[in-house]
Amino acid sequence: MSIASQGPSLATSASPHPFDPVRPQEIRLAVRILEAAFPGVKLRYNRIDIQEPIKKDVVPYIEAERLRKPLPPKPARLLYSYFYRLDTGAWCKALMNADTASVVYVKELPEGVQPPVDIDELAVIEEVCMKHPAVQAEIAKLQLPPGMTVCNDPWMYGTESLTESRRMFQCFMYMVEVDHPENNHYSLPCKFSPVFDAFTHELIRMDYLPGGSDAQEQAVETQPWKPVKAVQYAHDLQDEPIRTDLKPYIVQQPEGPSFSVDGNFVYWQKWRFRVGFNNREGMVLYNVTYDNRSVFYRLAVSEMTVPYGDPRAPYHRKQAFDVGDVGFGLNANQLTLGCDCLGHIKYFDGYRADCKGNPVLLKNIICMHEQDNGLQHKHTNYRSGAATVVRNRQLVLQMICTVANYEYIFAYIFDQAANIELEVRATGILSTVPFDNTNGETVKWGTNVGPGVMAPYHQHMFSFRIDPALDGHKNTVYYEESVPLPEDEKNPWLVGYTTEQTVMDKAGSADLDINRNRVFKIRNDNVINPITYKPISYKLHPAPSQMLLQSKRAIGYGRAEFATKPIWVTRYQDDELYAAGEFTNQSRRAVGVETWSKRNDPTENEDVVLWHTFGITHNPRVEDFPVMPMERISVMLRPDGFFTKNPAVDVPQSSQTFNKSTLHPEPAAAVPSCCSGSSKAKLYKRMD
Amino acid sequence: MSIASQGPSLATSASPHPFDPVRPQEIRLAVRILEAAFPGVKLRYNRIDIQEPIKKDVVPYIEAERLRKPLPPKPARLLYSYFYRLDTGAWCKALMNADTASVVYVKELPEGVQPPVDIDELAVIEEVCMKHPAVQAEIAKLQLPPGMTVCNDPWMYGTESLTESRRMFQCFMYMVEVDHPENNHYSLPCKFSPVFDAFTHELIRMDYLPGGSDAQEQAVETQPWKPVKAVQYAHDLQDEPIRTDLKPYIVQQPEGPSFSVDGNFVYWQKWRFRVGFNNREGMVLYNVTYDNRSVFYRLAVSEMTVPYGDPRAPYHRKQAFDVGDVGFGLNANQLTLGCDCLGHIKYFDGYRADCKGNPVLLKNIICMHEQDNGLQHKHTNYRSGAATVVRNRQLVLQMICTVANYEYIFAYIFDQAANIELEVRATGILSTVPFDNTNGETVKWGTNVGPGVMAPYHQHMFSFRIDPALDGHKNTVYYEESVPLPEDEKNPWLVGYTTEQTVMDKAGSADLDINRNRVFKIRNDNVINPITYKPISYKLHPAPSQMLLQSKRAIGYGRAEFATKPIWVTRYQDDELYAAGEFTNQSRRAVGVETWSKRNDPTENEDVVLWHTFGITHNPRVEDFPVMPMERISVMLRPDGFFTKNPAVDVPQSSQTFNKSTLHPEPAAAVPSCCSGSSKAKLYKRMD
Repeated sequence: MSIASQGPSLATSASPHPFDPVRPQEIRLAVRILEAAFPGVKLRYNRIDIQEPIKKDVVPYIEAERLRKPLPPKPARLLYSYFYRLDTGAWCKALMNADTASVVYVKELPEGVQPPVDIDELAVIEEVCMKHPAVQAEIAKLQLPPGMTVCNDPWMYGTESLTESRRMFQCFMYMVEVDHPENNHYSLPCKFSPVFDAFTHELIRMDYLPGGSDAQEQAVETQPWKPVKAVQYAHDLQDEPIRTDLKPYIVQQPEGPSFSVDGNFVYWQKWRFRVGFNNREGMVLYNVTYDNRSVFYRLAVSEMTVPYGDPRAPYHRKQAFDVGDVGFGLNANQLTLGCDCLGHIKYFDGYRADCKGNPVLLKNIICMHEQDNGLQHKHTNYRSGAATVVRNRQLVLQMICTVANYEYIFAYIFDQAANIELEVRATGILSTVPFDNTNGETVKWGTNVGPGVMAPYHQHMFSFRIDPALDGHKNTVYYEESVPLPEDEKNPWLVGYTTEQTVMDKAGSADLDINRNRVFKIRNDNVINPITYKPISYKLHPAPSQMLLQSKRAIGYGRAEFATKPIWVTRYQDDELYAAGEFTNQSRRAVGVETWSKRNDPTENEDVVLWHTFGITHNPRVEDFPVMPMERISVMLRPDGFFTKNPAVDVPQSSQTFNKSTLHPEPAAAVPSCCSGSSKAKLYKRMD
Repeated sequence: MSIASQGPSLATSASPHPFDPVRPQEIRLAVRILEAAFPGVKLRYNRIDIQEPIKKDVVPYIEAERLRKPLPPKPARLLYSYFYRLDTGAWCKALMNADTASVVYVKELPEGVQPPVDIDELAVIEEVCMKHPAVQAEIAKLQLPPGMTVCNDPWMYGTESLTESRRMFQCFMYMVEVDHPENNHYSLPCKFSPVFDAFTHELIRMDYLPGGSDAQEQAVETQPWKPVKAVQYAHDLQDEPIRTDLKPYIVQQPEGPSFSVDGNFVYWQKWRFRVGFNNREGMVLYNVTYDNRSVFYRLAVSEMTVPYGDPRAPYHRKQAFDVGDVGFGLNANQLTLGCDCLGHIKYFDGYRADCKGNPVLLKNIICMHEQDNGLQHKHTNYRSGAATVVRNRQLVLQMICTVANYEYIFAYIFDQAANIELEVRATGILSTVPFDNTNGETVKWGTNVGPGVMAPYHQHMFSFRIDPALDGHKNTVYYEESVPLPEDEKNPWLVGYTTEQTVMDKAGSADLDINRNRVFKIRNDNVINPITYKPISYKLHPAPSQMLLQSKRAIGYGRAEFATKPIWVTRYQDDELYAAGEFTNQSRRAVGVETWSKRNDPTENEDVVLWHTFGITHNPRVEDFPVMPMERISVMLRPDGFFTKNPAVDVPQSSQTFNKSTLHPEPAAAVPSCCSGSSKAKLYKRMD
């Protein structure tokens, strides 16, 4: 009997697909369920969102979809909530079944475990800070000229103590030079920084920021501000003229796009998948198939940490976990037509709950469009001059997250040769600190980016969670190295080389090794390629990156151990989605991939998960200020013996009829008549 | 007194710029000069092209151009020729002064030194091979069905001997399944391979190719062909239908492009440079400036080698040097509107000489166009919701080279944030070998890609030669590593890290080191950035790659020593342009960057050259056949303290008015009226 058929009717539309994002009526349902479970108790909602469905229950459903067989019952539609009981002061997590409108469990979180920051609470702290007399007193000491004010960015309080259990925010203060919606306050940081209790709103401590290059400098009392000019990024705040010689570049698709969309289901050029969205990870891709063969069950950026390398207190607490502490979904920009994407754009929406449990529409938080990426393949037969040219059309799904000062642009890029690229662009504004630079002084851990402002060194470490399903769920991760053959009689000219494979048959971690061309692959040992005689596989083109720089003895190291190895392999288990664990906010140490991989589960021909840590050691350039030209990181998943030949060989030829390019007009000039050669001529001319 | 003004008038146009490619009248002039120098001697021309101008003579000229001062005399316009004397049988090189129509020198090449392959000679060898009775006899043994024929690709003869001085070609033979200009003969390799003398046309030897996995297999006599079907890439030779669901994607620039062109001079978005072209390297960029500040003197891909890892004779001789042995310029495709580029396209032409000294037009061998590459920078002020979004417009200069079976696509990509990317795409058809695969057999050094055909492992190793001129020609290369601070009282929280610099103050080589985030930078110690207080600089984002795999004792190692280290630094010297030296064809060992760097020249605050070796260890995928989806490699040059802020901060805001995107039509559906949120709303809503 179908579970779905027993559920309460979801008034406004059909029952959601197991991978659909949370719907507003589901947020309301969760509130009703919890209100019924806690009659008379005032609850403050931190999160209400979908819970990942149980994989073993989903797989038969999506397999039936793929094979166009009668559908089995849908898996249970699960919702979760983090919430705060105003009666007992306890943080709780509830798991609910939306189909039966019932609680599966409610549990109190252990002492010291903090759910992520919620957006409403951040706004409150920001206001509390500005109104606090101690903060106002510091502001007064600045003796700011008329028209200038101060604002603050509350930051998650990176743990420095293994016993602290208050929920805290550290506010970084900035001067606001002009009353403009895009004033760059990050150019004028203040030297005081209050710390607040998130519940009592009590000022826990006023920190004073160091201003020089001495790591042990004693902080000094707030001094009157010595005026300097902010470095502005907004176009109408700049002194220099804006460029006028950039001509429009317009993409037209007169016959419409090559994709089709049904709800969150996308079909494009033999690819099919579902676009998921949740408050934490933001965009997630589910059930990715090519030519109706299963490829990936789930792809997501599961975590990111940004530890700062400035050794001076209180900067050691700056270690954001932008997925776990706040959520890429919650921070996703509401995208605007003609600005964030170009061409024919489809947008997807999401929802979140506010702290009262009201659904809030997150409009246009994912955009999808096609793009042309140059050539995909070409060959010219030099004898005949005949060329086959195929362009590289791509499908892009993009999400842009603003995390206070900084921006991340995530894109999954599909192509016609069965490749999937995860592209990350880092942009936005550097997290800055005040710096008393008087005599051309510099620091060893940062870059001066403007008058009185320095941008400390830091790292951005991402975890890309890859849940493969190559022709089924029993897969194996291994690595392959290219090594010279022995210098023996079978290699007489000393040029031979071969590949060596190492299967990761137990959960664990591995390093990259460029010098051995170490490549990580995922294969299905149960499906042999009829041409290569080897198991079908995909390979990962990793982004080779320096790992976490902080000391093994630093607290932040244990909180972000996922960032100490580029490759992790675990056996799939429900609830193991986030590389640094479920609760990162003020965490004391992670319970994430470093913990799960220690189980040493067998991972050969099992339901495996591959986690790739990559990132940037970002030692700021002055060119990254006042807003940073994007730095691009790319990770690719490419078929390697998954097909029997180039899967893009059936893409039509590139032609002028189709592409309608324009020839740049040339000044009238005679081509010397003495010379042979034309675009269709053979590439060489025989000698008589 | 001006040298240029004394030169013979070049009838059809103004005197060339020092960086202009060779003109047809200059080829004719060179022939006249040499005919005058060798009266009555029959000469066969291998190359006639421009010789790189003497740098010390060019610099005052281009500096005057940059500063808009009166121009000094142009440097001498030099031409060179490799040619063969039919009277003495000697290979010669001549250097000529076009301004004075005179010979600077003529020298005979030493015994054993071979000039590159010339295109006319290749065509002759191909014909000689087909007509040779021994080859015909082998073909007869194949007992091919009616309609099938055989063709051959002559290959440069990679040296296996330090004493061989004949000029030779090894012909690889293939069966031609259908009479079609795009028949994929690489799918049906034959097992015999004749070697010819390029001058006498004598059959030196018939090699028989191994067919199994045993490296010491004895070759067997040619057997009747067992028919298998070729794997075809051409659209009208495929069994499967071509995709029909790809919709047109048209780029329009109604106001024209943002670039302007005058001859080979290009101006785009604060960038100015000259597009050079020569037969050997193909596209070269000269005198690259940004906002009228000098950045690079010359950028070029100076060499590439492709050693194969198949240990079986005669495959050890397959080690092409595609720049030095043949020339990317000579192999550059004549590009076609609407196929190889998209949008508004400007083409550049080049010239070569045939073996009689006639100029041959190489039409459309470089294309230039703008492209949109997503976002360049974005920041949303989360308080106001106001966003600054700037798209990443790029200028692309592209050249595509066909080297027999294989294609390389080279692009220099300029952006508005003063970055230059060198992008290489590897595509085309794998170099294949016959393989008797009967029982699911595989080899340790290759991949089965079709019936009876195997693609051996190989490497593509490129040398990117970067001649910097950052605010002048006295520059310094150094590397910087990110390392933890000591765990002492100045780093109490153990999170601190810093950077350490190592100056390459003597010519030499260096390794990459991902684990230390080793970054290579070029700086000018004489120009201090007023914000950072450090010398202005650019950094290289290298492409981390496995280096040459063959043994140090292999002959090919000494021929391609440039490919054994990712970074080389030398002090500039005229005539040191090519990483593996001037003469690579049948070379016994290189006289290139490995030799020049051994001089240990001082390279701190000198006129330095940075050479970056990168590449792919290409262990073929079956998906790379019958034509390879491009594999992309990217190397970036980015300003790092060259400017005082983001140089793209003055690029106009991205807007729908300018970009004219299209919204994907949605099925009519009511947005639940209960929810707040809009694209211009604040990113959060305060709690009451």
